[in-house]
Amino acid sequence: MEKKRIAIVGASGYTGAELVRIASTHPWLEISALVADRKAGLEMPDVFPGFRHLDLPRLNVLAEIDLSEIELVFCALPHATSQDVIKTLPETVKVVDLSADFRLRDTAEYRRWYGRPHAAPELQEQAVYGLTEFYREDIAGARLVACTGCNSAAGLFPLMPLAEAGAIDPGEIIIDLKTGVSGAGRSPKEGTLHSEVSEGFQAYSVAAHRHLAEFDQELSRAFGKRVRVTFVPHLLPQNRGILATVYVRGEPARIHEALRRRYEREPFVFVLPFGDHPSTRHVRGSNFVHIGVVSDRREGRAIVISVLDNLAKGSSGQAVQNANLMLGLPETTGLDSAPMFP
Amino acid sequence: MEKKRIAIVGASGYTGAELVRIASTHPWLEISALVADRKAGLEMPDVFPGFRHLDLPRLNVLAEIDLSEIELVFCALPHATSQDVIKTLPETVKVVDLSADFRLRDTAEYRRWYGRPHAAPELQEQAVYGLTEFYREDIAGARLVACTGCNSAAGLFPLMPLAEAGAIDPGEIIIDLKTGVSGAGRSPKEGTLHSEVSEGFQAYSVAAHRHLAEFDQELSRAFGKRVRVTFVPHLLPQNRGILATVYVRGEPARIHEALRRRYEREPFVFVLPFGDHPSTRHVRGSNFVHIGVVSDRREGRAIVISVLDNLAKGSSGQAVQNANLMLGLPETTGLDSAPMFP
Amino acid sequence: MEKKRIAIVGASGYTGAELVRIASTHPWLEISALVADRKAGLEMPDVFPGFRHLDLPRLNVLAEIDLSEIELVFCALPHATSQDVIKTLPETVKVVDLSADFRLRDTAEYRRWYGRPHAAPELQEQAVYGLTEFYREDIAGARLVACTGCNSAAGLFPLMPLAEAGAIDPGEIIIDLKTGVSGAGRSPKEGTLHSEVSEGFQAYSVAAHRHLAEFDQELSRAFGKRVRVTFVPHLLPQNRGILATVYVRGEPARIHEALRRRYEREPFVFVLPFGDHPSTRHVRGSNFVHIGVVSDRREGRAIVISVLDNLAKGSSGQAVQNANLMLGLPETTGLDSAPMFP
Amino acid sequence: MEKKRIAIVGASGYTGAELVRIASTHPWLEISALVADRKAGLEMPDVFPGFRHLDLPRLNVLAEIDLSEIELVFCALPHATSQDVIKTLPETVKVVDLSADFRLRDTAEYRRWYGRPHAAPELQEQAVYGLTEFYREDIAGARLVACTGCNSAAGLFPLMPLAEAGAIDPGEIIIDLKTGVSGAGRSPKEGTLHSEVSEGFQAYSVAAHRHLAEFDQELSRAFGKRVRVTFVPHLLPQNRGILATVYVRGEPARIHEALRRRYEREPFVFVLPFGDHPSTRHVRGSNFVHIGVVSDRREGRAIVISVLDNLAKGSSGQAVQNANLMLGLPETTGLDSAPMFP
Repeated sequence: MEKKRIAIVGASGYTGAELVRIASTHPWLEISALVADRKAGLEMPDVFPGFRHLDLPRLNVLAEIDLSEIELVFCALPHATSQDVIKTLPETVKVVDLSADFRLRDTAEYRRWYGRPHAAPELQEQAVYGLTEFYREDIAGARLVACTGCNSAAGLFPLMPLAEAGAIDPGEIIIDLKTGVSGAGRSPKEGTLHSEVSEGFQAYSVAAHRHLAEFDQELSRAFGKRVRVTFVPHLLPQNRGILATVYVRGEPARIHEALRRRYEREPFVFVLPFGDHPSTRHVRGSNFVHIGVVSDRREGRAIVISVLDNLAKGSSGQAVQNANLMLGLPETTGLDSAPMFP
Repeated sequence: MEKKRIAIVGASGYTGAELVRIASTHPWLEISALVADRKAGLEMPDVFPGFRHLDLPRLNVLAEIDLSEIELVFCALPHATSQDVIKTLPETVKVVDLSADFRLRDTAEYRRWYGRPHAAPELQEQAVYGLTEFYREDIAGARLVACTGCNSAAGLFPLMPLAEAGAIDPGEIIIDLKTGVSGAGRSPKEGTLHSEVSEGFQAYSVAAHRHLAEFDQELSRAFGKRVRVTFVPHLLPQNRGILATVYVRGEPARIHEALRRRYEREPFVFVLPFGDHPSTRHVRGSNFVHIGVVSDRREGRAIVISVLDNLAKGSSGQAVQNANLMLGLPETTGLDSAPMFP
Repeated sequence: MEKKRIAIVGASGYTGAELVRIASTHPWLEISALVADRKAGLEMPDVFPGFRHLDLPRLNVLAEIDLSEIELVFCALPHATSQDVIKTLPETVKVVDLSADFRLRDTAEYRRWYGRPHAAPELQEQAVYGLTEFYREDIAGARLVACTGCNSAAGLFPLMPLAEAGAIDPGEIIIDLKTGVSGAGRSPKEGTLHSEVSEGFQAYSVAAHRHLAEFDQELSRAFGKRVRVTFVPHLLPQNRGILATVYVRGEPARIHEALRRRYEREPFVFVLPFGDHPSTRHVRGSNFVHIGVVSDRREGRAIVISVLDNLAKGSSGQAVQNANLMLGLPETTGLDSAPMFP
Repeated sequence: MEKKRIAIVGASGYTGAELVRIASTHPWLEISALVADRKAGLEMPDVFPGFRHLDLPRLNVLAEIDLSEIELVFCALPHATSQDVIKTLPETVKVVDLSADFRLRDTAEYRRWYGRPHAAPELQEQAVYGLTEFYREDIAGARLVACTGCNSAAGLFPLMPLAEAGAIDPGEIIIDLKTGVSGAGRSPKEGTLHSEVSEGFQAYSVAAHRHLAEFDQELSRAFGKRVRVTFVPHLLPQNRGILATVYVRGEPARIHEALRRRYEREPFVFVLPFGDHPSTRHVRGSNFVHIGVVSDRREGRAIVISVLDNLAKGSSGQAVQNANLMLGLPETTGLDSAPMFP
């Protein structure tokens, strides 16, 4: 088989770098173009010196790329920028978008949460939500896949099977989530300086984070009715990793069983023995999700804890998993690295 | 006024060191004895080189201390050890205990949570729970004060006034708490090694932590009925600081107002403007508590977030605050240092 | 005695905040004005929420401050900005400058290292270099004191007494220095983001750092001849603390003795027993310096290791120590806090 | 080709885990046995939950392993234990030892540095020092290879070519090294607790570290005369990564050229453009070494900075690289992962 030629747009950010890292040992992907407008002209090791050993194309502007050669584009641009770029891409190119731009099927919802009208509503219609384990077939046939938000993924992995199984009360869901700082990106901001983040912990976007829109959309669909959850994300003094502590009403044993069954054949999602719960370091740098279920002391309630790496399964790993499907490759190709610990 | 002579038992641990740090600039406390059985004979700077500038007594075993000279003993020993030591102290000595040994009024509850009968039930009867802002007068008159658990303090500061005001539903309280690792002490354990803690995050003692006993005791008393909360602590990759995210059912504005009123004259507890919420770094190394209230998007629910420093207001700062009351000193003496940031 | 009224210019940066922290428990300083051009109009807790418990003036622009009321100004502005501001201050106001603007007696040297002509050469002439332990008397009588660079201080404390004593070879001095990231300030830069700094370590400005100018100036003066040292700073994945590992040629025992004697009466500088060496955590948040001397295995060589807190003794603590002298207060006032550990 | 069956002895430590991580995606290695005396009976995910996705043998005691099936044993035991185990292995098994036990050709030197007589001097005679890039052919033919110390590797990569080329003065070498804490292992010790390591930095084993024995041995051999360097290691508040700042006397350009030439065909060692220097985060989790050369301001002197990951190229990656040679596999097999950043 010939290698599949890919381009990475937004190659100078953290998710772009993670795509390069994963693709560099992927046996069937060939990085044919790296796009980064503001760093065009630089070599990748000038931007990420850890890629010195790789033979990579020079960073370039999109206009200079011959897209007729490219089979699939990973678009790792900031929200709002992404839709403007993707609508210029030729139809022949498949697209995996890592931004929020095509995640919301309802463009009115998009406008509500992102404060601007959608610039490519016609593309939105064909976009498939990239939560692989739940939209596998649609993704395999899609031209445009919108990877989930990293926080959304961490919350949806434990909740979707419980919604499908009717194992929990949809009116009583609280997601207390903690995420590493790399999710905030590489653009310098006071709030993500080492001196501000290290040795400190706080919530942000309390009960108002945009990833709520994805929870609303996916959980309402899975429950078959309008569902509104409580969601409070917090910023961890660490680079990678998301842990979601999900408080639900339902029988703990039944909850565990619903999750165990749903994921027993999934290659990337592991449900721990009942009563165990995971740490973000158990999945650091890998495409795995670990989920644990513990009984609450209050009867009829359970605590479900999930972990994933925000840059891997939460974005770039998920993106490659989806690309594998879209390109007709085995879904797990290039994604079997074990977590790095310590 | 003459200085009050104090002894610190358990001076080689983190809370012991924090007591020394606070006492070292306290104008009315004089450290007359430092007790640390296994390190007896060493100078304090051998154990904590940061105290090199202080003129401190050598570490000693308790039996060698002339207690007739001592007005108050801070007992910073591990749980279970503490009761055995405190029952040997002469009646003339006041005691501030930082362990869990005397926190539970009901010795049956003690036995249930700590797995052993209480060794000094008669002392337990006279012990006062050290949540200063709620037991100030009892503390002032007490011989033995049992400082609260650091996690308990972080949860009780936001919840006690809401219980007293009847502003929330006692059946729907979830405390999702995150704590720095110094609370686990200085004894070497695999789980608190830097390689295990750094760049990782996990829950522990899920819905089963012993500080639940204090929540049960204090919240049941404040609500005037049996209350059982959900409580899940997590371990942060940072040394100091606790943040409790408390999910409650009640009117957010009323909740904020109840907290604001309750604490408006308190020197150490600050309620932020409605909608704001704090970070652990805002109180690092200080005796302050910051509390924020945010409306949930689900109507009739609020998210209350509190922060404190586990070694300061969560244990040694609280201990000095209580000692000030017990010794007839102004309550805030020696506790006015601003937080250290960054 | 009446309190001394001070102003802090540059109050929204880390050294500004550290000045507020120290001043807040200083018995003889009263913060009468806080200046921060870009944040003028804000309250200090909006910028540093940890100061919520303090009664501080609102942030303001300098033009709005009544300087006739102010006895001393701390100027914590970035390099180059400082000289333009200080030359506008009335003669009646004493000034402690924390920037590099007035450290170099030779304005030609200033131009060489900082790439621009000095804007206030007449002020430079009267400025005193703020290494308190070596210029105490000049500082006490000065109107303008230029605090040392934080790296320079860490290198000069071990080296100055050795130069004065002739205990080492001036041609063979290597300073390998490691510093926490707070020294880089609060302005957002890619290089100081948490994701870039945490779990990583590197050198910067190798053999070319501007603090070399201070080493040249002070060591040449102390040795009585032109001295050029090797100096390589590195960036630590921590917020506070500098450790300098200084490689020198000379008899280790004589070196230790020269340091011990020079500092035995100094309140802030401690020389450890021969063979011991310090950690940055032994001085975190405090105004202390710890210095250790160890024999090299190569005869006639020693390794001298010093630590200080870059924001405290390296800048704002040093600044208050100098201000105490300039204001006729006991030098150690307000600076006796023990280090914070952990 | 059939897979090579390997055993990992000492599988419950960090280097053991790193061996499993690397082997898990190595196409020609099959983990047939995992040995860990104190954890025998446990499954690997009980000890390292991040390996849950792998199909691994249960942890066992060595006596229970059928060694006739095993082609190569990785021995990741603590120093001193290793020699006792390795001498019991059948001659048919190749051995890669990660401990210090077989690194010193001269058993008198071993006794001097490790304070005990060598228990297997006859094995020591046949052992090959595992610095792959310098002993490649010997390693390919060896039965027993002793991987280098992680610190030694970080110092030898920059120094060996300079010694061979005669580009530096052998009497004037200073290695100021900084290492992450994972090198200290997983056994709980006060000094490696998070609260002790985080936000702190210090030297250890100043001018007395046992890895000096390896510098003595290898540099004396390379220079062709007795060489004694100065070596001061420091402990970084991070998990992985070593950076060595090496101060040498010699012409910087010639030094750079000697390194560049020596490594231009090496797959894992990269020499940066003259004047550039690396960070540990550029090699995190990978088998790469980056080396930079910068001119000192003092003429005829240079600063050479090298980085590697202590658990990868510093031990387990190096071990697999050597095993590849010993098993007749391409040397780089399984070792091409890009560094993880952030």
